Amino acid sequence: MLTGVRLYLRDAVEQLKDAANTVAAELDALGERHGDLALPGYTHMQQAMPSSVKLWAGGFAEELRDDAEGLRQTHKRIQKNPLGSAAGYGSPNLPIDRHMTTVELGFAQTHKPVTAVQLSRGKAEAQVCFEIALTMQDVGRLASDLCLYYTQEFAFVELPDEFTTGSSIMPQKRNPDVFELIRGRTATAHGALIEVLGIFSKLSSGYHRDLQLIKEPLFRAIDLCLETLDILAPALKQVRFRPENLTMDPSINAAAEANELVVKEGIPFREAYKRIGEKYRKK
Amino acid sequence: MLTGVRLYLRDAVEQLKDAANTVAAELDALGERHGDLALPGYTHMQQAMPSSVKLWAGGFAEELRDDAEGLRQTHKRIQKNPLGSAAGYGSPNLPIDRHMTTVELGFAQTHKPVTAVQLSRGKAEAQVCFEIALTMQDVGRLASDLCLYYTQEFAFVELPDEFTTGSSIMPQKRNPDVFELIRGRTATAHGALIEVLGIFSKLSSGYHRDLQLIKEPLFRAIDLCLETLDILAPALKQVRFRPENLTMDPSINAAAEANELVVKEGIPFREAYKRIGEKYRKK
Amino acid sequence: MLTGVRLYLRDAVEQLKDAANTVAAELDALGERHGDLALPGYTHMQQAMPSSVKLWAGGFAEELRDDAEGLRQTHKRIQKNPLGSAAGYGSPNLPIDRHMTTVELGFAQTHKPVTAVQLSRGKAEAQVCFEIALTMQDVGRLASDLCLYYTQEFAFVELPDEFTTGSSIMPQKRNPDVFELIRGRTATAHGALIEVLGIFSKLSSGYHRDLQLIKEPLFRAIDLCLETLDILAPALKQVRFRPENLTMDPSINAAAEANELVVKEGIPFREAYKRIGEKYRKK
Amino acid sequence: MLTGVRLYLRDAVEQLKDAANTVAAELDALGERHGDLALPGYTHMQQAMPSSVKLWAGGFAEELRDDAEGLRQTHKRIQKNPLGSAAGYGSPNLPIDRHMTTVELGFAQTHKPVTAVQLSRGKAEAQVCFEIALTMQDVGRLASDLCLYYTQEFAFVELPDEFTTGSSIMPQKRNPDVFELIRGRTATAHGALIEVLGIFSKLSSGYHRDLQLIKEPLFRAIDLCLETLDILAPALKQVRFRPENLTMDPSINAAAEANELVVKEGIPFREAYKRIGEKYRKK
Repeated sequence: MLTGVRLYLRDAVEQLKDAANTVAAELDALGERHGDLALPGYTHMQQAMPSSVKLWAGGFAEELRDDAEGLRQTHKRIQKNPLGSAAGYGSPNLPIDRHMTTVELGFAQTHKPVTAVQLSRGKAEAQVCFEIALTMQDVGRLASDLCLYYTQEFAFVELPDEFTTGSSIMPQKRNPDVFELIRGRTATAHGALIEVLGIFSKLSSGYHRDLQLIKEPLFRAIDLCLETLDILAPALKQVRFRPENLTMDPSINAAAEANELVVKEGIPFREAYKRIGEKYRKK
Repeated sequence: MLTGVRLYLRDAVEQLKDAANTVAAELDALGERHGDLALPGYTHMQQAMPSSVKLWAGGFAEELRDDAEGLRQTHKRIQKNPLGSAAGYGSPNLPIDRHMTTVELGFAQTHKPVTAVQLSRGKAEAQVCFEIALTMQDVGRLASDLCLYYTQEFAFVELPDEFTTGSSIMPQKRNPDVFELIRGRTATAHGALIEVLGIFSKLSSGYHRDLQLIKEPLFRAIDLCLETLDILAPALKQVRFRPENLTMDPSINAAAEANELVVKEGIPFREAYKRIGEKYRKK
Repeated sequence: MLTGVRLYLRDAVEQLKDAANTVAAELDALGERHGDLALPGYTHMQQAMPSSVKLWAGGFAEELRDDAEGLRQTHKRIQKNPLGSAAGYGSPNLPIDRHMTTVELGFAQTHKPVTAVQLSRGKAEAQVCFEIALTMQDVGRLASDLCLYYTQEFAFVELPDEFTTGSSIMPQKRNPDVFELIRGRTATAHGALIEVLGIFSKLSSGYHRDLQLIKEPLFRAIDLCLETLDILAPALKQVRFRPENLTMDPSINAAAEANELVVKEGIPFREAYKRIGEKYRKK
Repeated sequence: MLTGVRLYLRDAVEQLKDAANTVAAELDALGERHGDLALPGYTHMQQAMPSSVKLWAGGFAEELRDDAEGLRQTHKRIQKNPLGSAAGYGSPNLPIDRHMTTVELGFAQTHKPVTAVQLSRGKAEAQVCFEIALTMQDVGRLASDLCLYYTQEFAFVELPDEFTTGSSIMPQKRNPDVFELIRGRTATAHGALIEVLGIFSKLSSGYHRDLQLIKEPLFRAIDLCLETLDILAPALKQVRFRPENLTMDPSINAAAEANELVVKEGIPFREAYKRIGEKYRKK
């Protein structure tokens, strides 16, 4: 049973990793498509310094690759062969060769001693849920950006028609439902993680029936993440930034101008900051 | 000890309730100050139907009053007198009058039987943390709105100078730090809630030392919420909406127009929806 | 849609409340069946003072009644009529009488202003999940006790055959699976609560598609709790304490003896504590 | 600032790793001290098959080494140099050599592109909190075992006097407070994890002030885990199993006997299971 879960996880993690890398590649492609189109860079949701669509997409792409690597790291806990540990105390009087099944099933090592196996239940599962949570969090933040950029006030992006929906009451609307759901699913991933951790917390050692409950949130999290990445990749293909609306606040170059003063005039940054600040400060 | 916690909670909850009602009153005042200034109403972050500053502020005010009532409901669990239950099995051979202390300390009832007292540890505390979480969530969403409305792209509001801060790198900036912290503290409230619940979960009956750990997240949550409400109230006094920037997308009246067609021409909503939709639909 | 959720919750909460009260009644019956059978009372999992099966069961019964009342309190948030608020900004040009539907559908009040309705989404749902979490936590702790009392070392209880299962490897075993699952489901309830809270956290005001995600964890939590209470009630009917094994450590009367010394000899508790302590202290 | 956090985490993780390995070594020593002393092995908290103190301690030791490795894996996210990314959009007009600081500060790589840096805030921190949660969960379960084994009914272990405390009411008692606190702190670790994840969830890209809130739960979790491991190691030195009380239920060899029948008599396991089952089954 536990062996089955680990073999399943080994595959699932590869799928998740590939799906995260696919989204990263689509983000790179999105950046490429927009050439060096400038985009305001924000801090505190305020225009801060010039950025570009390529930098915007590239940041998310990098973090999705980081998630893919994080998912790959779960192999450390998955790749331990539990077979032969039986109920947690081995198989007395039976001639079991644990090393053989380790080799044949492609595990990296035999999980030893037998008592460790039951104690480990939930740990690999929780780590997979944790890495899924980070992945969902990254795409959830990407979705937050797109929902923001899709407002009439920003109007930075066009979203593909197949990925927006109409309203039952308001005939004029096209809503970014797919991206809202991606954002909302961040919470579903958190819930699954805390559920898995809670199931095996505080239990005395040895197998308990409670541990069977782990599978439900584990599968829920994996399906959620795969479905989300699989819908996000094609959606990104059709996201288009609207150059006509990407207007920068003139003050966005203030930091660059202050830096320039420092280099050109040799004045301390503090003074340059003050001079440029006077030029741009909101009244 | 437990009696002390309950007496403390009784006071703390009143303070929290008052603080939430104070914020609600400030929101009402903010609405009043802006008369009937129109504000776009959003669904899916898209302009949907006309609203007003008063309706916007009034919605949050109502929900903060709801939070205050929710905080008040925690009295049901707080107002049970544990005194005399001793370690959970009463005080054999001692002439204890539990009813007397119930009356003198102003409890609503004596917590009986004695074995229920230790089982109840954490429940009132968790309920207070839960209602704090809802309260923080409401003010967190208010803060989300203000951070959004404060962007250069929306530019719907001016925030008070004392409640924004400058940047160490970018001389032009005024950042809505106070509101960002209020938004972020939503997560702190969630953390305290899940910590309290986790501490007493799965324990066998009777007192355990683990239960002492409840106080730390409980006090953290209460302090967090009080501080937040106490800073939010004066900040709201100075929030000003900027009529010059509150522009509505013309399509925002589409639903009203469709309704009007239904009433005036007696056509089905479906047809009215279609006609108005053609007028406004994004290409 | 939201109206449907609230009408559904109104019924679901009544069912949950009844189910919790049914379990409480079964606990009372269990206590009655055992007359005044003494049971060690524990603190820190150590024998502390004499208790009884009736006190043990009565403590849990009281807390389940407390949970039933807590579930009932959720009516405050459920019983607000959202009908007529439409997408959150009312129904311009339509002659809607919100008061009428409030009366006809049996709501306690009309949810006003319209903007509060969308802001409130998730709050009643979260409160139901929270009270479910407390209920599950109480029955989870009851299950912890029974799993402990069913060990060969305690051997305090017999569990009904229909509620225990055999092992596939070990022919001698009868395992308390039902009670283990009840204990483990505590974590499932926590997961659903944190998921619901997370879904609507930080969202700007107005409806968002994310909010549709609330239903899944909400229904999961309600079904979980109903199923658990519905299986626990009949199981408790057949739980039997084993008088032959309910042996008390002689030291269990130490506190009573110290109290007696105080009353009879008029010495300070500190001295009585010391004298009795010397008599019983573990070497 | 972020650079400082990463340098701090690099050290903290090494300390945590060392502390986990120290506890693992103490567990091995505890196993060695008890030679081949037999201990019942449990499943479902029921005596299942013969185990030994060495196997019991060895299982936990192995999982603590697994935690140490998991903590080490966080380096992947910590060891990326953020210096030079400034507010997330680089340092225009300043001659910054990011590679140089990467080498000088001993980072494994430069975090690129600059926009990824702010998006990554919280991810390494969350992973450290997650691995701390697993570590706390493992020692929490060890503490659950010791609290169980320390009951009068099991009486399997003696705990060191310095790590137990007396009761203010009951003069006979020695309570396993230290181990109860270790068990309870599992929940504190979960709370910190969910708090960290919640803080950066759903935020649009770029720096936000909310992110400063991450440090508090991060430091709380690290301190909690270090303190716990540092008190557990010396406590384990003095844990002594009591051979006189380690009695096995005769049925504990049932699985071994069934296996033996299979091997010796060549009958199917199903039949052997039935025969041995009849011998031992509870009436």
